[in-house]
Amino acid sequence: MRDDLDGLASAGPEFLNRLEAALPGRVAAPTPAYLEEARGRFTGVASAIVRPHTADEVARTVRLAAQARVGIVPYAGGTGLVGGQTAQGPAVPILLSVEKMDRVLEVNTQDNVAVVEAGAILANVHAAVEDKERLFPLWLASQGSARIGGLLATNAGGVQVLRYGSARDLCLGLEVVMADGTLWHGLKRLRKDNTGYDLRHLMIGSEGTLGIITGACLKLSPKPVDIATALVEVGSPAQAIALLNLLRDHLGETVSAFELMHSQGLAFLAEHLPQIAQPFGNPPTWSALVEVGGGRGADMQTRLEQALVSGAEGGLVGDALLAQSDSQRKTFWEIRENIPQANRKVGAVSNHDISLPVSAVPEFVARGGPAIAAIDPGLRINAFGHLGDGNLHYNVFPAPGRARAEYEALRPAIKEAVHDLVHALGGSVSAEHGIGRMKVGDLQRYSDPAKLAAMRALKSALDPLGILNPGALFGDEK
Amino acid sequence: MRDDLDGLASAGPEFLNRLEAALPGRVAAPTPAYLEEARGRFTGVASAIVRPHTADEVARTVRLAAQARVGIVPYAGGTGLVGGQTAQGPAVPILLSVEKMDRVLEVNTQDNVAVVEAGAILANVHAAVEDKERLFPLWLASQGSARIGGLLATNAGGVQVLRYGSARDLCLGLEVVMADGTLWHGLKRLRKDNTGYDLRHLMIGSEGTLGIITGACLKLSPKPVDIATALVEVGSPAQAIALLNLLRDHLGETVSAFELMHSQGLAFLAEHLPQIAQPFGNPPTWSALVEVGGGRGADMQTRLEQALVSGAEGGLVGDALLAQSDSQRKTFWEIRENIPQANRKVGAVSNHDISLPVSAVPEFVARGGPAIAAIDPGLRINAFGHLGDGNLHYNVFPAPGRARAEYEALRPAIKEAVHDLVHALGGSVSAEHGIGRMKVGDLQRYSDPAKLAAMRALKSALDPLGILNPGALFGDEK
Repeated sequence: MRDDLDGLASAGPEFLNRLEAALPGRVAAPTPAYLEEARGRFTGVASAIVRPHTADEVARTVRLAAQARVGIVPYAGGTGLVGGQTAQGPAVPILLSVEKMDRVLEVNTQDNVAVVEAGAILANVHAAVEDKERLFPLWLASQGSARIGGLLATNAGGVQVLRYGSARDLCLGLEVVMADGTLWHGLKRLRKDNTGYDLRHLMIGSEGTLGIITGACLKLSPKPVDIATALVEVGSPAQAIALLNLLRDHLGETVSAFELMHSQGLAFLAEHLPQIAQPFGNPPTWSALVEVGGGRGADMQTRLEQALVSGAEGGLVGDALLAQSDSQRKTFWEIRENIPQANRKVGAVSNHDISLPVSAVPEFVARGGPAIAAIDPGLRINAFGHLGDGNLHYNVFPAPGRARAEYEALRPAIKEAVHDLVHALGGSVSAEHGIGRMKVGDLQRYSDPAKLAAMRALKSALDPLGILNPGALFGDEK
Repeated sequence: MRDDLDGLASAGPEFLNRLEAALPGRVAAPTPAYLEEARGRFTGVASAIVRPHTADEVARTVRLAAQARVGIVPYAGGTGLVGGQTAQGPAVPILLSVEKMDRVLEVNTQDNVAVVEAGAILANVHAAVEDKERLFPLWLASQGSARIGGLLATNAGGVQVLRYGSARDLCLGLEVVMADGTLWHGLKRLRKDNTGYDLRHLMIGSEGTLGIITGACLKLSPKPVDIATALVEVGSPAQAIALLNLLRDHLGETVSAFELMHSQGLAFLAEHLPQIAQPFGNPPTWSALVEVGGGRGADMQTRLEQALVSGAEGGLVGDALLAQSDSQRKTFWEIRENIPQANRKVGAVSNHDISLPVSAVPEFVARGGPAIAAIDPGLRINAFGHLGDGNLHYNVFPAPGRARAEYEALRPAIKEAVHDLVHALGGSVSAEHGIGRMKVGDLQRYSDPAKLAAMRALKSALDPLGILNPGALFGDEK
């Protein structure tokens, strides 16, 4: 495959003419919005943006690209954070956007599924199924623009993975255009199907390098109607884990969110977004936002309170605030949801999307601080995130009064220190966001060699010409 | 790959000598128990049984087999029902049993995982984690002898898939010996890890044709402590589905079992296992066994009762018996659990492990009866199973007083009628049991061509010599 990559051709005028002839009105020059990642960290190249209206049109595009050995970069909502949607060349590819295929085709409350096109926007899926008293439990910051095809291609996570799993756990079937332009009709809605290799799970999380997702059958859940939310002071990450286990012991899988927060994040929030109410008089060093949800008459409020009392008796809980109304619930969530915004206003030197065995989180936090301080004692750390999944957002900030630009030279050392520690503790250097083009080197450095060899073999097997999202995952390795 | 398969060599004396020299004491002649499937439907061939004690010994075995191009049939509990563990030749392979690697290495209640060797017996895993107030929620009839490696290789299902998913959903990490004898160290315990292709899900369900699982990190769940069970008369499969949806609406994911039963099964039970108590005075045509489980103080008994009252008011529920004690709960389950045993005593002409979109179950039942009657009006049908998963065991029996042997000639027509109807309704001809060697033809007949092509490419990519479980999934296609 590596030799093949060298053989990719740029999408030149002749190829684009053929494309336009085969797909009249679907081909256009790419506007900057398609080439620039939202935060401006990655800029890609592309000769054209193709916007098919059907899976068949996607297949036609792929067949033409295969004939000409032109690369295709699949494009969904453009919200990915690791440059998976921005090709770097040298051969100039085309972008294939699924935005014109954005329909929710069916919501079936007997099968508990939604069948959608790959371009369906997550928030629209939420709305369509909520109308029918169901839940599609994938929640993340970009849900107003992220599209299902991209969410599946990157196996997106979010705030309810603890209870419902990641995107891959919420998908029963896929429709995919393969690298030779054939269409895999895999839009099944079965809960059990043991007929051969699970192509679906192989496609999910492959970041557009093995096939182009054109449709999906999504699994819906019952909508919890009885919800309780609390903001809880905990003594340490270790105590937070003990509390989480106590809550699950009391309340089972109804625990749907357990978000750990550090006082550094609350301080950033107070400074840069003072309009966000903070209910704690004195911000605790560590706190957790807890949410539980059950069926009718589950009486979650009383049961969460009892569990927290039991936690307090065991010394795991300090101050605890139980939301007394929907609006108070919202207030609590606004704190957690605005921490990333406050972080942006401060300006991080380096951000890390990492996961760890849950039991290793305390050691990671304990060793991470000194490791960062050894690089520069003024650096500040804000660690927060989905503790129940062992998933921390571990962000490093300048000393007070100093700018991120001053630390540019230190960033590689910070990244290495964090990632080495994560790896030593059995964690992952990309919990939610994927590899894209940003973490190609990390994948090489930290992956098991047998896994890397298998990945290369799989890529060669399903995309022998190397036309699908060239450069993603594998870089330009020879 | 197809040409390669022709090139497989039989495991002759010279090869076995080399194996014995490399793995002293691990190689033996295969006793009949290893070659014959439990029900006697499949008999395999093998020159030797190898019983490695470590993953490294498995790797050594695979490397030697690769050098000699000798086939390896992985063997776990031997409980598979589709001949996946019985090689047919013509080249005579070796069997590789993981039975000597049967340890539960770790149960971690912070990470909520159990790390086990591939030969660990399911019932032993249950016991090990229940000691620590956790649940490994994979329950099936053969749990006293089925081993984790085989359960994962076949993506086993069972009675709680509705709530907890299949084997693949219960596994966080794998250790696998690849076809070239390298060891993939993938025993992660992370809830989120988006670093490249998901090899784990590709290996799970691949029936030993892509690698040999040597260890697994299993995901544990909180143990429901408040359980309620009911036996409920329903008017039809359609009403059963409506009731299931009502229960999930009321009780959310706490619904852990919803087993549909037909009066034919209850009649077989009454006739052949009269010692099993049947609480219904007059066996209803359709009934369901329902179980719900929640955390402390969840008061499931009251809430299940309320939901059933609501179902009765909506005309979905006839007679309903709510278990009043643990022993009554057991009595209810004994009915469901003994139906397969009663079936065996009657002697089925043909058994079908099928799944359907849940909404299509009523149509399948309505059309299945006439389709079978058209073949022979005397045939009797017992349909039962995991309605919540759309998974029916659909078994066809002789007319009263006649023997299965008399229908031998009709079996292919019955199978075809059932499988064609399943396929027409968007279902699967192997819900739980896999393809093995028994359903190779069905896989060819009913699979999407793009999926089949991808499967062949994946097999060639990861096992280019075709030494892993030769004949399984693909048969001896050229």
